[in-house]
Amino acid sequence: MSVVDVSSVNAFIPGEVELEESQLRLIEQRDRLLGPAYRLMYQKPLHFVRGDGVWLYDPDGRAYLDTYNNVVSLGHCHPDVVEAITRQVATLCTNTRYLHETILELAESLLSTVESSDLTHMMLTGSGSEANDLAYRIAKVRTGGTGVIITETAYHGITDAVSKFSPTLGEGVPLGEHVRCVRAPAAYRYGPNTAERFQSDVEAAIADLKRHGIQPAMLIVDTLFTSDGILPEEPGFLKGAAGAIRKAGGLFVADEVQPGFGRTGETMWGFQRHGVDPDIVTLGKPMGNGQPIAGLLTRHDVVEEFGRSSRYFNTFAGNAVSCAAAAAVLKVIKRDRIMGNSRDVGAYLLGKIEGLRERHECLGNVRGAGLFVGADIVTDRETQASDRARTTRVVNAMRENGVLISACGEDHNILKIRPPLIFSKENVDLFVNVLDNALGTSNV
Amino acid sequence: MSVVDVSSVNAFIPGEVELEESQLRLIEQRDRLLGPAYRLMYQKPLHFVRGDGVWLYDPDGRAYLDTYNNVVSLGHCHPDVVEAITRQVATLCTNTRYLHETILELAESLLSTVESSDLTHMMLTGSGSEANDLAYRIAKVRTGGTGVIITETAYHGITDAVSKFSPTLGEGVPLGEHVRCVRAPAAYRYGPNTAERFQSDVEAAIADLKRHGIQPAMLIVDTLFTSDGILPEEPGFLKGAAGAIRKAGGLFVADEVQPGFGRTGETMWGFQRHGVDPDIVTLGKPMGNGQPIAGLLTRHDVVEEFGRSSRYFNTFAGNAVSCAAAAAVLKVIKRDRIMGNSRDVGAYLLGKIEGLRERHECLGNVRGAGLFVGADIVTDRETQASDRARTTRVVNAMRENGVLISACGEDHNILKIRPPLIFSKENVDLFVNVLDNALGTSNV
Repeated sequence: MSVVDVSSVNAFIPGEVELEESQLRLIEQRDRLLGPAYRLMYQKPLHFVRGDGVWLYDPDGRAYLDTYNNVVSLGHCHPDVVEAITRQVATLCTNTRYLHETILELAESLLSTVESSDLTHMMLTGSGSEANDLAYRIAKVRTGGTGVIITETAYHGITDAVSKFSPTLGEGVPLGEHVRCVRAPAAYRYGPNTAERFQSDVEAAIADLKRHGIQPAMLIVDTLFTSDGILPEEPGFLKGAAGAIRKAGGLFVADEVQPGFGRTGETMWGFQRHGVDPDIVTLGKPMGNGQPIAGLLTRHDVVEEFGRSSRYFNTFAGNAVSCAAAAAVLKVIKRDRIMGNSRDVGAYLLGKIEGLRERHECLGNVRGAGLFVGADIVTDRETQASDRARTTRVVNAMRENGVLISACGEDHNILKIRPPLIFSKENVDLFVNVLDNALGTSNV
Repeated sequence: MSVVDVSSVNAFIPGEVELEESQLRLIEQRDRLLGPAYRLMYQKPLHFVRGDGVWLYDPDGRAYLDTYNNVVSLGHCHPDVVEAITRQVATLCTNTRYLHETILELAESLLSTVESSDLTHMMLTGSGSEANDLAYRIAKVRTGGTGVIITETAYHGITDAVSKFSPTLGEGVPLGEHVRCVRAPAAYRYGPNTAERFQSDVEAAIADLKRHGIQPAMLIVDTLFTSDGILPEEPGFLKGAAGAIRKAGGLFVADEVQPGFGRTGETMWGFQRHGVDPDIVTLGKPMGNGQPIAGLLTRHDVVEEFGRSSRYFNTFAGNAVSCAAAAAVLKVIKRDRIMGNSRDVGAYLLGKIEGLRERHECLGNVRGAGLFVGADIVTDRETQASDRARTTRVVNAMRENGVLISACGEDHNILKIRPPLIFSKENVDLFVNVLDNALGTSNV
């Protein structure tokens, strides 16, 4: 990697700090084999060989507290998921052109989490990107439109179509001519009346699309606005915007890849916190606790014409092994009251981080829902001016002390704290201790 | 599924034949849960609960010879792959933002199969669709163009971008304005001089794109033209067309999702049979013997600007479990001389099917490479007129007698025979016996 990439948050920048010989050799080998498009995290990249619960281990046996993982959301190598995969992979791994019960059990279980909505169908994909790509294809057929409305620092994936509405990919990846960005609904940055402002921003985007002869197909939002900086408050603020896009003939798509599967604590899905019924809900990362599986939920009328005109087959999506993993994940979430843990430990985590504000002037606004917390690093609490350089120092100091987080937001100045949902209060105490220390030593 | 879908080859059409109560119940449950876009295969859909080698088992314990599987290309539940997945899933499953040795071992092993080319980098995706989508994104950045040239009955995948150059998805999915189709290079249909004709067809498509102000980005072909009807002859015919697209500033992309990983017997990749060096090679289905993993191989200069401007991260692609499965697949292919088996048993299979032509007038042209055979069902050998109805009868009669194949081609009249690569001569004898019988009883 010969290029200095400043657009990627918390990316390793070659030559910035000195590395050990063994690390350099691995990085060189990686650059030679994987080429120039791949990025590593942290000033000193990490090499892991084993995972267990909330812990990752490097080759020297050093343990790192994984506070940045919403893929293995039940913890690394969760025994129930490992067992489900191990059993199914030795029994059968076929596709959706044959009948198989596991995919139906998964669908029943998943759709039972949205019983109060009109969502009745599950479709499976191989990644969150494919899920959002499929949602867009369905939305175009359903609405006859092509326009997409997103927030200013959104990320929805990397297929050709989806990359055109994922501004966080950086200026090297152009947004589509049919795409409009609106301000993130950040009460703490733009002042109160989040619901009204977000709705009127979306209405302005709809009007602008129409003025350019483009019919809106969908408004798609991460319902916790995680790449926009984690924006949970006030629950309910999505209603007006969802109504506006529907009135304009478009669909409201809830991207639950980040907030879904119980992370926000009070509800299984982020959209449920807002009391809205999306037309399509897209799912991803934590769905199989690491096993590749993603998908979407939708209503019959939304997918009816697409089903007739386009049909759908995806070789790997819906394979029996991935379905078995996802079914096990849902079982554990229910059995082990994972949502309750996310709510309780999340509240404890948020309180503890807020408590650090007394001692650290650089800690600006702190907010969260369940086990997803965002904390701004600022030069001045009054102006809320971003301190990207200090954010980088904090993230890397924590990594040096064995705790993993990353950063996000337009200015790369927001600590992104996102542990597995089995995080304990003891884990929080360790985490906060290391964060406290990193904030204290983060002056240059 | 309330709709009769005639565009999908060998699809189950509800109401066409009588089904057992238990089957009907499963199908109803499936329609209710998965919605109207999913399709089943065969007049009487199949329900499987177990797989072992070349065999699939239904709930009653009846065994079906799987002659239609290029995903579990080493056979169902191959012990080495099961072991690799079982071990890795209990150890660690992380992503490519951390250093991990398994992905590097996989890359070394995979790139060693193309040592004589300039292909030096491996990039991973979660599906063949994502691989072709990524290839297109890279091609656009590399060439500055958007135009895509494909064959008339091509299939490359289902993302929004890729569906626009996958005509087999049917007339309900429009091709892109930037897409041009050329005739499939079918010597047996269009006469000799395949190489010259294919090159001049591609040159005409390039001229037409340019006449419309569209700069060509890529010519992409399945190097065995499997959805065009399986077109292996004469090896070498791709050279002129690959040269033509390069001369026009576009890339030549070899889609190896179907022919790759040793299926054609003589070479690991379909493009190697043709003596061409593609700019990008895309990989899919058999890569992890069922575990979701796909990707591409390319040269440094092709991906250099994309790497700088766009970077690349895909959460599931490159996870340690999928990499371990793919590394095991490559090890088994080499250790167990899978390519040799594909070549020898493939030749035996082709000879046996050709032998049936004496007894069955409806069997038209038969051709293949390794363990991929296409056989036309015709009303008349002289005119080669397609017999779609009889093809459907043959495929379903074989299914009734416990052997699985499907059909392909523009007219849905080509038997598509594609067993796992561990197929034995004994398996061939059983297969040919059942095919013989089905051809004999396929008069209405």
